[in-house]
Formats: sequence, structure tokens, C-alpha cells
Amino acid sequence: MSERRVPVAILGASGYIGQHFARLLADHPRFDPLLLGAGERSEGKALGDVWQLSEPPPPALEGRRLRRLSPGGLARAGIRLVFSALPSGTAGAVEQAIARRGIAVFSNAADHRLDARVPLLVPEVNADHLRIAPGRGRRPAVLVTNPNCSAAGLVVGLAPLLPLLAPTAVHVTTFQSLSGAGYPGVPSLAITDNVVPHIPDEEEKIARESSRILGRVRATRVVPLAVPVVAHCARVGTREGHLEAVTVHSDRRPTVGEIVRAWQRFDPLSGRDLPTSPHPPIVVREEKDRPQPLRDRWAGSPPRARGMAVTVGRVRWEPPYLRFFLLAHNAVRGGAGGSVLNAELAVDEGLVAVGREG
Amino acid sequence: MSERRVPVAILGASGYIGQHFARLLADHPRFDPLLLGAGERSEGKALGDVWQLSEPPPPALEGRRLRRLSPGGLARAGIRLVFSALPSGTAGAVEQAIARRGIAVFSNAADHRLDARVPLLVPEVNADHLRIAPGRGRRPAVLVTNPNCSAAGLVVGLAPLLPLLAPTAVHVTTFQSLSGAGYPGVPSLAITDNVVPHIPDEEEKIARESSRILGRVRATRVVPLAVPVVAHCARVGTREGHLEAVTVHSDRRPTVGEIVRAWQRFDPLSGRDLPTSPHPPIVVREEKDRPQPLRDRWAGSPPRARGMAVTVGRVRWEPPYLRFFLLAHNAVRGGAGGSVLNAELAVDEGLVAVGREG
Amino acid sequence: MSERRVPVAILGASGYIGQHFARLLADHPRFDPLLLGAGERSEGKALGDVWQLSEPPPPALEGRRLRRLSPGGLARAGIRLVFSALPSGTAGAVEQAIARRGIAVFSNAADHRLDARVPLLVPEVNADHLRIAPGRGRRPAVLVTNPNCSAAGLVVGLAPLLPLLAPTAVHVTTFQSLSGAGYPGVPSLAITDNVVPHIPDEEEKIARESSRILGRVRATRVVPLAVPVVAHCARVGTREGHLEAVTVHSDRRPTVGEIVRAWQRFDPLSGRDLPTSPHPPIVVREEKDRPQPLRDRWAGSPPRARGMAVTVGRVRWEPPYLRFFLLAHNAVRGGAGGSVLNAELAVDEGLVAVGREG
Amino acid sequence: MSERRVPVAILGASGYIGQHFARLLADHPRFDPLLLGAGERSEGKALGDVWQLSEPPPPALEGRRLRRLSPGGLARAGIRLVFSALPSGTAGAVEQAIARRGIAVFSNAADHRLDARVPLLVPEVNADHLRIAPGRGRRPAVLVTNPNCSAAGLVVGLAPLLPLLAPTAVHVTTFQSLSGAGYPGVPSLAITDNVVPHIPDEEEKIARESSRILGRVRATRVVPLAVPVVAHCARVGTREGHLEAVTVHSDRRPTVGEIVRAWQRFDPLSGRDLPTSPHPPIVVREEKDRPQPLRDRWAGSPPRARGMAVTVGRVRWEPPYLRFFLLAHNAVRGGAGGSVLNAELAVDEGLVAVGREG
Repeated sequence: MSERRVPVAILGASGYIGQHFARLLADHPRFDPLLLGAGERSEGKALGDVWQLSEPPPPALEGRRLRRLSPGGLARAGIRLVFSALPSGTAGAVEQAIARRGIAVFSNAADHRLDARVPLLVPEVNADHLRIAPGRGRRPAVLVTNPNCSAAGLVVGLAPLLPLLAPTAVHVTTFQSLSGAGYPGVPSLAITDNVVPHIPDEEEKIARESSRILGRVRATRVVPLAVPVVAHCARVGTREGHLEAVTVHSDRRPTVGEIVRAWQRFDPLSGRDLPTSPHPPIVVREEKDRPQPLRDRWAGSPPRARGMAVTVGRVRWEPPYLRFFLLAHNAVRGGAGGSVLNAELAVDEGLVAVGREG
Repeated sequence: MSERRVPVAILGASGYIGQHFARLLADHPRFDPLLLGAGERSEGKALGDVWQLSEPPPPALEGRRLRRLSPGGLARAGIRLVFSALPSGTAGAVEQAIARRGIAVFSNAADHRLDARVPLLVPEVNADHLRIAPGRGRRPAVLVTNPNCSAAGLVVGLAPLLPLLAPTAVHVTTFQSLSGAGYPGVPSLAITDNVVPHIPDEEEKIARESSRILGRVRATRVVPLAVPVVAHCARVGTREGHLEAVTVHSDRRPTVGEIVRAWQRFDPLSGRDLPTSPHPPIVVREEKDRPQPLRDRWAGSPPRARGMAVTVGRVRWEPPYLRFFLLAHNAVRGGAGGSVLNAELAVDEGLVAVGREG
Repeated sequence: MSERRVPVAILGASGYIGQHFARLLADHPRFDPLLLGAGERSEGKALGDVWQLSEPPPPALEGRRLRRLSPGGLARAGIRLVFSALPSGTAGAVEQAIARRGIAVFSNAADHRLDARVPLLVPEVNADHLRIAPGRGRRPAVLVTNPNCSAAGLVVGLAPLLPLLAPTAVHVTTFQSLSGAGYPGVPSLAITDNVVPHIPDEEEKIARESSRILGRVRATRVVPLAVPVVAHCARVGTREGHLEAVTVHSDRRPTVGEIVRAWQRFDPLSGRDLPTSPHPPIVVREEKDRPQPLRDRWAGSPPRARGMAVTVGRVRWEPPYLRFFLLAHNAVRGGAGGSVLNAELAVDEGLVAVGREG
Repeated sequence: MSERRVPVAILGASGYIGQHFARLLADHPRFDPLLLGAGERSEGKALGDVWQLSEPPPPALEGRRLRRLSPGGLARAGIRLVFSALPSGTAGAVEQAIARRGIAVFSNAADHRLDARVPLLVPEVNADHLRIAPGRGRRPAVLVTNPNCSAAGLVVGLAPLLPLLAPTAVHVTTFQSLSGAGYPGVPSLAITDNVVPHIPDEEEKIARESSRILGRVRATRVVPLAVPVVAHCARVGTREGHLEAVTVHSDRRPTVGEIVRAWQRFDPLSGRDLPTSPHPPIVVREEKDRPQPLRDRWAGSPPRARGMAVTVGRVRWEPPYLRFFLLAHNAVRGGAGGSVLNAELAVDEGLVAVGREG
């Protein structure tokens, strides 16, 4: 790899999202995952020893030791950028302390998602929200969050529809996979031959975060989209990939062909060189029974963007109700991959001091 | 059992719903399942040889041979009432031919559900729809259908809300179990680690049938409820029990307590002696994560009414949107049990000639 | 219930086996579950609040509070007999302290299974092993254990074969259900679309405990059966019921009919009035694809003995190898039910001081 | 691709194994899958329309039409080599007719596995069995079969042990995945929350085929290995990968280190350039809970050999019993991949007329 790779650290590398970060960054062209952080329980173990994903651990990081990392230690090690897979609740203070040291933070945790100066970012949807963040060289450094794993896919599917449909309400019911709860997560006895119609705070997060992401920046403030997002969330026994049944209420009358084309033509990052960005970001399936978690979770090309595309299908437009199903990989598009893409965008925008000269 | 038990036949007894009919009727106080009908493939086999349910076959019927049954043969055998678990498509003509012989037909098939003189019946909801059927002794005899397995639970949950909320729209997303597709039904490779967001015609049936059941009788015609029922249907990997995420849009403003009490007080059959009728028909769960297919599918008391109660929970009322989850056993409340309850009501109403004198 | 019911306590009542104890004892004709013990986390909660089984909690105990119980407190409350579902490791010392107070202990934990004066008991197989225990009124009181959940079914299936086959080796491979690991137990991400070929210490327990149970009492010592039990253990994604593939090596040459009859005639407790004892204890299935966890886990009659019968099937006898599959409900026959049956036997044998006069 | 690619056809391309053939051959360096054969039901459809694997269909073949193929038609199209995924039973006569035309046949079907002149081939184990086949240019042409999906992995795991242990018996219990039954295969209602302890003829095939593959060629005859292979077979709810619990009885006393090294050093094809051949063919895992279907099914490098390696683990050697678990991908090593490797070997050995000059 080139010397230009930015030295980065992964916080919470022993968890499910942390391991997806490791998988995505092991051979990333722009980021070099020098340090893997973990808590007391995993400290000193190799990444391979705590590995939980079904894919094998990346050879480049398999033997790398997990360490307890402090903001000061990160700075001394020359880390310029941190990916945080810390659990919500404990993430907040740690991430702030790191940002205050001038290290850019890209976080999957919920703690700062609604903070005034923190972009809740999905590059295809609201790249302009980066404007609310502090500029390069400022302290605290930029802190960018990615949304809840269900909201992440939803907003991509909705974004191209907004100008066309001007929705008055969005209804969404989720079929969320086991990995959304991390590891160990859901006990097998709780979910085998079962569906659990409750995921703590999830419905509120989807409503709040979707409105913020789809909102507009006025000066340095985000004005949320004033459309209710009415959500039901349930856990089903799939491994990865969140399926969502979406109904959009609209008083407009485009044709179904216009709707499909709006999705197919949507590719706002097409001119930029962001390695983890899928082209197209939305895959429209025409089969009568897609998208499916098993078959569509890894959608996305080029290969580095596997799992980053959002798949939509079963489009039914009977005004005023547009119905469709949507699928996104919760741990990639809705987790580590989303955060990596955010970092690629922020670096590209010059918001991160990347050189060792710093 | 008393000699008063009406001699009945089960058509399609070798299938999944047919076996639930056998289970429910084996020791029924009012019906005596004399004849078990089946097609060419199962003809001559004992019921126990083709048994697919996880519960053991009922001892009284385990050794009973499956036979090919004709309308004439049913009449000659003194059958007064037939339960039909025939596949939709072939059921229609057969059921009509039987009814023309003066034998009452209670069908789980879709073919006649929208016919002018055929009640689409859920006794707790629209017992008065029996008025559109021919009276006792008429030919053709009464032909009564029960709704689609998802609509059956939904209308029970909605019925007590109508006067209170006067809904302007109902949104429902289903998590349907494997048994909804019968046996062999869904291949394991299609559903393991997967959700399939498509069940042929299901969304249309839910919309159409729910509106009809919740409609009013004017003269001998049913006027459907003029409220859109916007449905998404998906198959998940549970064995039995259809879970539904329901959102009701309403401009009224009752309290959440009034809504819950409307469900709890709902028991329109409380004065009648119908053996398969659950009391209460709606179970309201207050836990944060119920209803669940695994735990709530068999709700319903007394014991003969197991699987006949509809369970609701996770009630969230943020006007104008009432959200809740609802669960009903698709093969009992939404299948064989619903049909048996229909027959109990029709016999009680005097619409079936039950005596051997016939 | 009669006043004669022995006042008993359940230790570890909040766990999976503890809840099966509660289910079995709630309306037991001889035992009255006065006290439900639990640790710090569940103390003060009602049994219904921590309930994990798919069956609903028994009404008689649903509202009963879980309490922290001490040996002294048990004695003061007049408890004569304790069922222990404590975790192995912590169970040992507590159970001893209780027995020293003169309270009989029936334990599902592994700690004392190989102790000199502690019968490792399966009533149909080795009722005579009770002879090694202290007599009624002695201190410490009788302490009786039931075996590992996989060994429990295996020894029942093997017992009738010993005189006929005089085995020289027994091979067994287990397909163990999720509930064998308790709750929360196996993470869903670890087992969905997977088999885990390792259960800590299980293979050793099966070998050691089976040999001990099938051994003979000489004076007050158990001489284990000198036949190697060669085990492979794996976890599969079923909810309840351990399936076992068994091969018995024998140099004898009975007919297959003699083998099947040996199982069918086996009913050593037939003359005794033990409520939880199944008759017959072994169900022989002749279908080509049984036993199955889903269909055979609840085998056993009368109703109180549901889940206590061991089912065998797919018998193939090609000397010197007898092959068959065997199934037993791990949490009933191999857990709480086995322990309740042990207590019924011990009371019947006069080894427990049952009166309040004590 | 080079013009040197041998024009081949896939028979039964619409089935599960047929699709794995398509996946493996789409960009194969030596074989060019010109024709995809299918029966009446799939005739005329594109491969992508009938696709069942969770991986997406190979772009090069996705649009290729399925055709009904006759031996004469294959010859006229210049096909030199055929891969057969025809169902056992109908495969036999068709494959013979094709071979009589001088076209080499590599078959996954069972029909000819025990025929005198037909090698039952696993290249790492019995490459010398090719000697019993007719030579290049002979008619009928070479017909080579690969074994049953469970035997295929077993013999690879056993081969290195034979000289070291000189087994007197082999016991094997299988945990077979859903895909072993093809599509639609096992109904979801038959296997959800269940294990089915019966797979028709499987135990007999494992015994017979393993003995033949491990046997020796004397003149042109295979003399089977005279060691009993005692098998139990069961279906579990995993998607792909057959897990096997193996016990080898031996009177020898090597160390466990010698056993492990025998596996690790085993690589009889290391000197040959066979693209689908994995190096090493056996992966030895040292974790306490491996191999697992979810994590080890795709073992095998280089990338083209994914799913071709056999994984062993949990080695326990307590003489005279060696116990271990073994895993192989049933549809790759035990199906299409095994057959492709057989063809690569046969071409390399000069047994197939590959040029268009033919």
C-alpha cells in the first residue's frame, strides 16, 4: 500500500460492527488501520481470536492485537482519523475527547447523531450537511456520524422520490436481522420459530434520523424534513440485511416509470472517486419477490462497495399510496461501510488533516 | 359423544388446513367427522399416514381412511354439512355442486368469498352477514366462507376500533408463517436465513376481504367499508401464527385507555354457546415485546378455543396514527377454526338442517 | 390439592430448567412448591416476569415472587425437599448445606453426580442405586442427582439391551437442542444456518455418567459398567429435544424382533404409583424417519408424563452393529422431569421425611 | 478466454448442482460451457430465470437459454465433454448414450458409480482408478463419476490416515445441509425446529462408495477396502456444508501429532496444474469448536478452489478410538466441484479428446 494511507484507529474493534470495519479497512487504499481498540475483556487478544463474522478474518489484521486506546495515546501514535464502533452510551464522551485532540471521528454510535455541529451523514443524500461541521485544522476536529442501520437504507431509497412525490407521510415496517443487535445479541431461544416485534428506541431513531438526514441546511443548522415517518420495527431470524416495507403517501401523480427512473438515475457521487461508494447506489429489481435478505444483502459494485447498494423492488403505485420493499445490509451500508464512505467523503472535501506533517 | 352430533365430511383432509379440521373436529361436541375426503394421491391411506402437524394425530381419526368423495356420495352417506379445505381454484365448482344437493358448506377456499349470496364470515365481527345466505331447507344450501388467514385476525382487531376511531386508512404489514402456504409449501432453501416479500394475491385479498367483512348489509347485499387497507405481505421462517404491524389513521382523539378498553370489552358472542368461540376474543398484552408468534399463537380459552383468540400489543397512539402489532394463528383463527366457528354459528342460527330426518 | 403435598422449594427457579420445574410442580399431586429461589438479578420479580418457555406460565405460580433462599430459611419455612436447578459449580456447596439441615435435595446440577453417597438416578434404570444414599431421618439427608440431559435418554434406551446384547462398545453422536444451554444460552448469530460441534465437557459427562448409571451396586459402592461410551456432541438449531444416533457393538445375535420387544416390554416402574412416570417409558416408532425433535419431544403418557418417554426408531441390525436413533426431551426427561420422578421414587421408598411433624 | 477451452455441456443445468456447475464453469480456464441442458419445464428459459443459489448468477451465463439436449445434438455441436447433474435414475441411460458417441462424461449421478469400467473418482485419493476407464479415443468414451456428497469429504479425511492407523472400523454420523436434497428439496415445515434422521439410501451409499474409493485397483478391477463404514445420516437446517462426526477404530498407536501431520502434509496433487484443486486439500482447525458449516464451508484456496477443501477439527485420540469432526461443501467438493476436478484430471491424463480436430 502507498505511504499516503491515512493512519487510522478502530474503536470497539472486537464487536460485530468493529469487525466489519476491520474487514473493510484491512486493504483500504486510503486508510491504514494501525490500531485496533477494545475494552478490558478483549485487551491483548488477537483480532482473529474474537472473530465472529462468517467470512474469515482479513489476513492483514488477523494477528493484530487489540489494545486499550486513550485519546492521548491515539495522538501520540499519529492517528489522524478514528472509526468508532463503541456502544452508544459510552461512545459520546470518548469521541468528544478524541475530537478535541484534533483527530477526526467517524462514528457509528447514536450519541452525537442529533448534535448541532455533527453531520448525520449519508453521502448520496446529504453531502452538503458537512457544512455544519468544523473545518480542517479546527479543534475540536470534525465528528461525523452515520445513522441507525434501518434509517441508513431508508433515506437512500427515499431521497430520489422527494422531488417527484413531495410525500405527506412515510410508513415503514422493518424486518431486521440478528446482526443488528451485535454479538452475542439475540438469544437463539428468543428468536427461533419467532419474530420479536420490539427493538428498543428503533422506531424513534428511524423517525428522527430520517427527518434530519432528509432535511436542509440553513446557515449552520439542519432543518428536518417535516414529513412524519411512522415506523414499526421487528426482529426476524435472518443473519444480515434489514428488509423494509415502505409506503409513501403522496398527492402527486407521476407514472410508475418516472418513479423507477428516478431511482435508476440517482447517483450523485458518480463524479467523485470514493472507493466504497456503490454505482449505482440503488438497485431496482423487477422480479416479483425481491429484494430478499439472502440474495440482495451484498448488492453493490465495484467489489469494494459490496453491501453498500440499497435494493428496492415490488413497486406498487396506487395513488395516493406508493408501496415498495427496500433492503440494505445493516452492518455495511447501515454500519461500518456507511462510516467508511463518510470518511472518504470528508477526506475528499479536505475536512481531515491527512498528512503526517499535520 | 351424543347422537345429536351432525354427520359432517372434511374435503381436502390430507392437507395442512384439512388436518387442522380433523384435529378440531375429532372430539367436537356438535359435529361428527364421518368422512375424510382426499384426492387421488392420498386416496386409501389412513389419516395418520399423511399427518404433517407437529401435534400427534387425533386417536379417533388416526386410522380413518381418506376417500374420494362426490356430492352424490355425500348425500347418500347422510352428510348434512361439509368443511372444505380444498385448494382455491378447484374448490368453487365442487362446493357449489354440494350446496345444490342441500348440504351446507363451510369453506376455507377463496373461490366464493366475494359471491353475492355467500357470507364471508367472522362471527365476532359480522354475524349479521348470514342474512345474505339462503335459509334452512333452501337449495342451494347455505355456503359460508371464512377469510384469508391474514384478514381473519386483522378484522377482529379492527372491529372494536371502528366506532371509536372512524379510520380514514389502515396500513398493515404481515410477517406470515410457513404453514400459511400449506404442505409442502415453501422450500426450506427459499426461506432459511431469508424473508420473501411476496405472497401471491395476498395483499389484494386482505384489502378486499377486510373491507367486505367490515361492511354493512343493505337488504341482501354487502356494502364494503370504504376505508383503504394498504397491505404489504411477507413470508418469514416461523411455523405458525401470522404477525401483523398495523397503523390506523384517524382524525378522532380518544385516549389510549379508551382504545385498550374497546378491545378488552369486545365479546359479542359472550351470550352464545359456541364451543370454538374464545372468550375474550382479543387478548391485550402489555409487555413491551408482545405479541410473538412463538408465545401467543395458541391464545384462546376455553381449551377448545386455543388458537382462536387474536392477540394485540405494543399499542402506540400518536394521533393521527394508532400503531399496534396483532397476531392470530393462521391455520386456526385464520383457517380451520374460523370455519368451524362459522358452522357453529350457522347451526345455532338454524341455517343448517341438522337432524337425520332431513 | 390435598394437605399431604410435601412443601418443597425450587432453587434457580428463574432459569430454563427452573421454569420447567415450576411448570411440572405447579399442580403436582404430591409436592407443593411453596418457595421459588433465585439470585440477585431476579430477586423480587414475579415468576411470570422472567418466564422464557413458549408455554404460558402456570397460573398458580405466575405471580409468585422469586426470593433469595438460604438453608436456614428453608428449614424455618418447613421445606422438606428441594429441587435444585442451580448452575453447576455453585450448586455443590449450597446443596450440601441444605442436606446437612436434613432437607432432601434433588438436583439437576453436575457437582455431586459422581459422589460416593449420591445416587445418580434414573428410576427405570437403576432404582436400586438409592441404596447408597443415607436413610430417612439421617443427616445429611438424601441428595439425589439426575444425569446430564444427553445421558438421561441414552441410558433408558440402552438398559433393556444390556442383557440381550452384552455390548462391547457404544457409539453415540448427539444433535442437541438450544434449550440444553439454558437462557440466554447460545447466541442466535452463532447457530443460525450452523451446527456447533462442541459442548463443553458434554462428551466426558455422557461417557462417565452413562457407565455409572448402568453400573451395579456392590455394598454401598457403584461399580460402573465397563463398556466404552464413545461420544460426539454437537449443537443444532432446534428448540427442545436431544436427538442421538446410537451404535451398539455386540457379539450376540438376537433377532431384530427380540431387540424391539425388549424395548417394548421394558416398564420396570409399572407396578408403582409415580405420577411423572411414563408408561411405557420407551416408545418405538416404525416410520422410516422418526424420532424427530419436533414431533416426538413431548412423547409420554399419561398427560403428566408428557416429555418423559424416550423415543427410539430407525432400528438397523447388521451384526455386530446395532444402529438406532433415540430422542428425549432434554429439559423434561433430561432435566426437571427426571428430578421430579427421582423425588417421587425416593418419597415412595420412604427416604424423605414428608410429614409436617418432621 | 483462450480458444483452447474445451467445448462442454452441462446436463441438468436448472437444478441446484447444475447451477453450481454453471457457477464454476462460467469463467473456467479450460472448459467452455457452450450448452446448458434442461428438461421440459425449464426449456427456453434463461439460466438467470431459474437461478436458486444465494450468490448471483454468473454474468457470462445469466442470459444463456436452457435447451433440451440429445446425444446426437451434443455431437453435432462439437461438444467433447459433458458434465451431468441429471437426477439419479434417469441419468444412467442418457450418460451411456452420450459416452457411446465418444463424448467424455463426468457425472454427479449415482447410476454408474459402481460400474466395472467407471472410476468413482476423488483425485486426491484414487487418481489411479482412472486406469479402469477406457482410453482416449475409445468408444464408449470415458465415463467418470464423483461420489455421494457425504462420502466425498469423508474419503479425503480418511485417506491420509489409512497407512498410519490401518482402521478396523469407521463410524460416521452426518449433519447434512438442506442443499443436499436439491431444489425444492426439503419443505420448510419439515425441518424448521427439527432434525430428520433419514435420507434415503444415504447410509448405504456412504458405506459402499467410501470402500470403493479407498480400494485398490487390481488389473482393471477395483477391490474395495475391507473396513466397515457404519453410518447414521440426518438432515439439519443448514443451507450448505455437510458436517460429519467420525470415529476411527484402530489398533495402532501413533501420536496425535503424527495424525495431524498426516493430514497437513497430504497434498498428492501438489505437482499438477489442476485449476479447481485446493492446496492444501485438508485444512486442520485447532479451535475447540470447529469445523462449522457456516464458517468452513467455503474453505479452499486458491480462489477457484473455494469450497473444495475438507476441514477437520476437534481431534480426540483415545486409543483405540480416534474421533474428529469433518466438513465439506456438499455441492462443491461433494458435487459440481468434485466433478470439475475429475474432468481436469482426466484431461491432464490425456483421457479426453479435447481438440476440435477430435
